[in-house]
Amino acid sequence: MSAGGAGGFGLDHLPYGVFSVAGGERRIGVRFGDGSGDWVVDLHAATGRPEFAEPSLNAFLALGPEVWRQTREQAGELAASGEHAVPLDEATLHRPFEVADYVDFYASLDHATNVGRILRPDSEPLLPNWRHLPVGYHGRAGTVVPSGTPITRPSGQRRGPGEVAPTFGPSRRLDIEAELGFVVGVPSPIGTPVPFSGFGDHVFGVVGLNDWSARDIQAWEYQPLGPFLGKSFATSVSHWVTPMAALEAAWCDLPAQEPEPLPYLGPGAVRGLDIDVEVLLDGEVVSRPPFRTMYWSPAQLLAHLTVNGASLRTGDLFASGTISGPERDQRGSLLELSWGGREPFVAGGRERTFLEDGDEVVLRYSALGTGGGRITLGEVAGRIVPAG
Amino acid sequence: MSAGGAGGFGLDHLPYGVFSVAGGERRIGVRFGDGSGDWVVDLHAATGRPEFAEPSLNAFLALGPEVWRQTREQAGELAASGEHAVPLDEATLHRPFEVADYVDFYASLDHATNVGRILRPDSEPLLPNWRHLPVGYHGRAGTVVPSGTPITRPSGQRRGPGEVAPTFGPSRRLDIEAELGFVVGVPSPIGTPVPFSGFGDHVFGVVGLNDWSARDIQAWEYQPLGPFLGKSFATSVSHWVTPMAALEAAWCDLPAQEPEPLPYLGPGAVRGLDIDVEVLLDGEVVSRPPFRTMYWSPAQLLAHLTVNGASLRTGDLFASGTISGPERDQRGSLLELSWGGREPFVAGGRERTFLEDGDEVVLRYSALGTGGGRITLGEVAGRIVPAG
Repeated sequence: MSAGGAGGFGLDHLPYGVFSVAGGERRIGVRFGDGSGDWVVDLHAATGRPEFAEPSLNAFLALGPEVWRQTREQAGELAASGEHAVPLDEATLHRPFEVADYVDFYASLDHATNVGRILRPDSEPLLPNWRHLPVGYHGRAGTVVPSGTPITRPSGQRRGPGEVAPTFGPSRRLDIEAELGFVVGVPSPIGTPVPFSGFGDHVFGVVGLNDWSARDIQAWEYQPLGPFLGKSFATSVSHWVTPMAALEAAWCDLPAQEPEPLPYLGPGAVRGLDIDVEVLLDGEVVSRPPFRTMYWSPAQLLAHLTVNGASLRTGDLFASGTISGPERDQRGSLLELSWGGREPFVAGGRERTFLEDGDEVVLRYSALGTGGGRITLGEVAGRIVPAG
Repeated sequence: MSAGGAGGFGLDHLPYGVFSVAGGERRIGVRFGDGSGDWVVDLHAATGRPEFAEPSLNAFLALGPEVWRQTREQAGELAASGEHAVPLDEATLHRPFEVADYVDFYASLDHATNVGRILRPDSEPLLPNWRHLPVGYHGRAGTVVPSGTPITRPSGQRRGPGEVAPTFGPSRRLDIEAELGFVVGVPSPIGTPVPFSGFGDHVFGVVGLNDWSARDIQAWEYQPLGPFLGKSFATSVSHWVTPMAALEAAWCDLPAQEPEPLPYLGPGAVRGLDIDVEVLLDGEVVSRPPFRTMYWSPAQLLAHLTVNGASLRTGDLFASGTISGPERDQRGSLLELSWGGREPFVAGGRERTFLEDGDEVVLRYSALGTGGGRITLGEVAGRIVPAG
């Protein structure tokens, strides 16, 4: 194999995942693509290290930044040598890590503003707390599934406009949320907040994430304790975890924060990631949300999450919330793309609002790599199957 | 030892926990008390079964109702014989199970009504959805701690009445929520709801639970996605898990539900548990919430939690929400006992509202056992230490 990086999986990327071959044991691998094809480097076969014989990345993630750095160096040498490489198309891919707690934020100003305008047209779109703290909530860790898992349309209570009582049935407003997820490697003790500056000590990398949402179920249930069954039926993540080390060239300044956040949120030191996202509906790109337009930075999300003394565990997953940019074709949910279902958008030559049975959604992510070209982060795919 | 049941831990109770002796390995044990003292039966020493050499109950919980039944029979014989029993005061107790997902409901009509009146005095106390579904949300599984763990007062953003911007600092309205938690043993697959009638196939038992709450942090952050840092700093559970088999005599009818719930919630078949709760503040009983007055039943909570196809995992914990009865001295939170801090209550000879540093809160639970006397469920204790 050459050292070149075809398809965004060159030596400056090297994302981690869990794979098996022909029904064998799950192993940790690193993806590499070059002119000769796409490969998974079998890290256990190559190194014999026990953390790579695990069925999830968690044991490796817990080892911390110095081990992550050394392993990345070694993985690069292995990829370049072509040793212990399995052809990607012979590998079955699995969920890359065991999710401890899953937190989802609401960190895009454009998304929060759009949702406010759609759902509460007669009020200020942003609630008073929004510019002071990254609003977030806990989601269901047990239903985080890997890319490719079919998504069964959920049933539940929903109340239509003008109806007094709810009815029960399959969601009629099934939606996506195009997000980025951050994967915690190193735990922290209860009672001790992780400061803004501790991001790199704890966060291993990122995954693509689709926070499937049943808007009608959510709208009826969410007051006063927030989203529950409208979100908890499934959240899809990519097979590949891109380490933060592969994103060093992608850091960028975010839009200004006004008012200045409280000191624990690190005002004046807000760095985001310039990651391009594409939302494909049945193979057609319907939106291109830009992660560089997020309001709250990844390090601010982590600092907020732990400022009350909440501990971190290996495998904690915290996601950005829907990524939406200021333009119409940069919206990361169908709720926004169809403006609450009232303004259908065109895809596949016809008008669309929410997801139909059989629809396939794919989220793609790319960023500037340290090698000067673009790297392709793990994609997230899922097809809707009818309610059971 | 005799077969008698002093202190509510007789042969008709036999709760499960995790213990160690003199710094040794954690083991699964069953608590038993008789005229000669309090004991922990070492199930691994007695049976050699590998699931009892685990540091958590999870492996045993996953084995299902038939194994639970056989083990309970065997534990009863062991307790009666006095073999393999360790004196309770020589055992160190630990968190009894690894929490998978933690869901907290809001199932007491009196609590929800009180909170509505306190926080939204000019509106209907109950939101329109409340009588149609058990409102709930996901909490942080990683900060569920065993009884006796000190609780550090959390810091965070809070905005006082009349203030425009929030300030940062230790919570000034630290509270308890006296709850009952249900522990899931048998998992269920994603996409397949667990019906109302499946409660006994999946739920192993109950724990006492205190959902510590920082009301000022919660009030500022909770819209629109629900409680987050106001709850995620700590949730305490009892050391002992009382199996549902020990509560067979405690089932009772709940108050009528109006309007009749949708079919998946099992209308007309609503059975609750007649469990008495006591809230002690610095050793003095300040409230006696009755679990028999809950609106939504345990089986309804489970049916709702999974009706969207969400899977269950071994170790899932779902809690009732604050237990409050209709009387003033039956309220399960200090928010209610002090009516939002505006009407202090008297404890220890002085006026009290929210928790002060150094306060100790103990929750006690008891119910009718199958032997005709009362059983004492696991208590939950915690002392407040100052913000770090």
